Amino acid sequence: MALTVGVIGGGQLARMMIPAAVALGIDLRVLAEHEGMSAALAATGVGDYRDLDTVVAFADTVDVITFDHEHVPQEILRELVRRGVPVHPGPDALLYAQDKLLMRERLTELGLPVPDWARIENSEQLGAFLAEHGGRAVVKTARGGYDGKGVRVVAHEHEADDWFAALAEDANGGALLVEELVEFRRELAQVVARRPSGETALWPVVETVQRGGVCAEVIAPAPSSVGRVADVAADIAVAVAEGIGVTGVLAVELFETTDDRLLVNELAMRPHNSGHWSIDGATTSQFEQHLRAVLDLPLGATRARDTWSVMVNVFGGPADGTLGDRYGQALAAHPMVKVHNYGKASRPGRKVGHVTTGGEDLDDVMYRARATAAFLQD
Amino acid sequence: MALTVGVIGGGQLARMMIPAAVALGIDLRVLAEHEGMSAALAATGVGDYRDLDTVVAFADTVDVITFDHEHVPQEILRELVRRGVPVHPGPDALLYAQDKLLMRERLTELGLPVPDWARIENSEQLGAFLAEHGGRAVVKTARGGYDGKGVRVVAHEHEADDWFAALAEDANGGALLVEELVEFRRELAQVVARRPSGETALWPVVETVQRGGVCAEVIAPAPSSVGRVADVAADIAVAVAEGIGVTGVLAVELFETTDDRLLVNELAMRPHNSGHWSIDGATTSQFEQHLRAVLDLPLGATRARDTWSVMVNVFGGPADGTLGDRYGQALAAHPMVKVHNYGKASRPGRKVGHVTTGGEDLDDVMYRARATAAFLQD
Repeated sequence: MALTVGVIGGGQLARMMIPAAVALGIDLRVLAEHEGMSAALAATGVGDYRDLDTVVAFADTVDVITFDHEHVPQEILRELVRRGVPVHPGPDALLYAQDKLLMRERLTELGLPVPDWARIENSEQLGAFLAEHGGRAVVKTARGGYDGKGVRVVAHEHEADDWFAALAEDANGGALLVEELVEFRRELAQVVARRPSGETALWPVVETVQRGGVCAEVIAPAPSSVGRVADVAADIAVAVAEGIGVTGVLAVELFETTDDRLLVNELAMRPHNSGHWSIDGATTSQFEQHLRAVLDLPLGATRARDTWSVMVNVFGGPADGTLGDRYGQALAAHPMVKVHNYGKASRPGRKVGHVTTGGEDLDDVMYRARATAAFLQD
Repeated sequence: MALTVGVIGGGQLARMMIPAAVALGIDLRVLAEHEGMSAALAATGVGDYRDLDTVVAFADTVDVITFDHEHVPQEILRELVRRGVPVHPGPDALLYAQDKLLMRERLTELGLPVPDWARIENSEQLGAFLAEHGGRAVVKTARGGYDGKGVRVVAHEHEADDWFAALAEDANGGALLVEELVEFRRELAQVVARRPSGETALWPVVETVQRGGVCAEVIAPAPSSVGRVADVAADIAVAVAEGIGVTGVLAVELFETTDDRLLVNELAMRPHNSGHWSIDGATTSQFEQHLRAVLDLPLGATRARDTWSVMVNVFGGPADGTLGDRYGQALAAHPMVKVHNYGKASRPGRKVGHVTTGGEDLDDVMYRARATAAFLQD
């Protein structure tokens, strides 16, 4: 019996599952949004993941359904489950990656540490929250945000009026999420994998560096994290995975506050940028682990292969070509660095690849990774 | 400009190029012998590599041609070169992987250490060689042998009469190769990559353990090889690569004799079983390096990632299923081990995959690798 995994979405996360699938002899099938996507090599179908018939027809060809993104509508996920298709993560878990208000409510119920937050439906409620939190706050749309979109720092109750107006026009109504502006020292991420039968496996907690709301660099493990920080991050991630019933890979983005607390920022229920270092830097990558987990196979060892691994994202790329045009310089200067090219056309600011390298000396490792990324992008 | 590499042959070597191609954004296209082969995911064509039109049509779709095997006829390779298609390795080099007599002649011309050998056309000549070499020798067909086929240990001049008879019926005539039966302590392999522009990169020399003429296990690096053995193996491999003009990956199989010499046994001009450990055990795998080399891109670092890496081949597999059926046991017992499943149907004795693991203690590493392979095969 060949193991067949269906991935909805044809982006770079699906693409990076291909090498792991090839190694394990897993028949990976991707339902891509359109032709020529990052995961085109494994695409067996092209269609709209918001169309029930398209998704059902795709699901009929695979043993288990998983995802490149979290945008498949709940009603479609639930229909798959009703038809007996294994869906990992399942709709009851994915809900909390799709809706930040529900996520905050659920994490609070579970007693997990989160920033102060409130559900707000109008500017008066925003004003009240601002008054209680030093006059500044973060407003987020409950749905549809990613890479900094749908997130706004506000200092005045009317700075989210356009979003309130949009909610009023939405037949489903709804509300915004407002959160305290956390004073944090740095951002961390804890990636964990969980099988349907319950086994979990965690990689070392990492430091993530964001620029313009987008992940730019990851250091694994997070410096000075051994001991309490690592333990608390691991406990939180396992509590989230078990509390919400996540299957597959879960990334828990955390704030390390200036007063030494860890607070949950965001959840991603799929392989995540903060885990890309694991392809080259850990015994089992997050992509292999995700495939193992959704197939309910035993999880692999997550040990870091180097003292330090650094991953740097590559944005944009050559204006008139592809990353490959820069390989001559980049690979010659940095033979230790592993390059990951997502096969996307260059566009200013677009995440088109990443590089990872590892070693004993963090400054040296960081320099190599950044220098290679600089060669590749404009 | 996307980098497009065409691979002739759809076996596991082409398959294992896929992950490296995905990472580097290389458009890998495979001309497979038939449907459903190991490298089917990357197959853009199915056809006979002995048919000129088939190969030319395939070559028209790629930037460079390389190989999963060494069996493409010289006249087809030369026609590709005549048409301006970059072919790596080229026909002038591949000749010496295709014909063992020519290989022995050329290595002897280059002054490289080889077993005593002779070109023989009849039993009288075999008898004379036996008389000069203690009454035993190895007879090999010049062409078409692999994995122990076309190789015979003989003690009598008439033990190769069937092969002489076959030669007589062959319109091209030809001869057999006879070699002294080398008294060796162990077998080693030195894998090297070479770019068209001349850069070479070598992995550590490895020990290969053969069973029934087929590679069973590889230990990287070869125990007690640091220093003279590693230096001599490296010098030989570079001399072969440069002397013959090999481009891409070259594996030089070596005998370490009981009197401490290294003699060249066989050459393979493609990624080779003795280099499979590098996927998990080296900074740059032989498959990534082969793609870099044939595209004339800078070569990657070849450093071993662990003190010891051990690769064990998996033969046969479950009689009534696939390797995947054994994952539950194998992966649970050995979370550190990396499994490579070639996606082939089980058949007694067939090489259907391999496993690799690494660590500090060779006995422990060897145990883990062997135990995992034992779980997977019958």
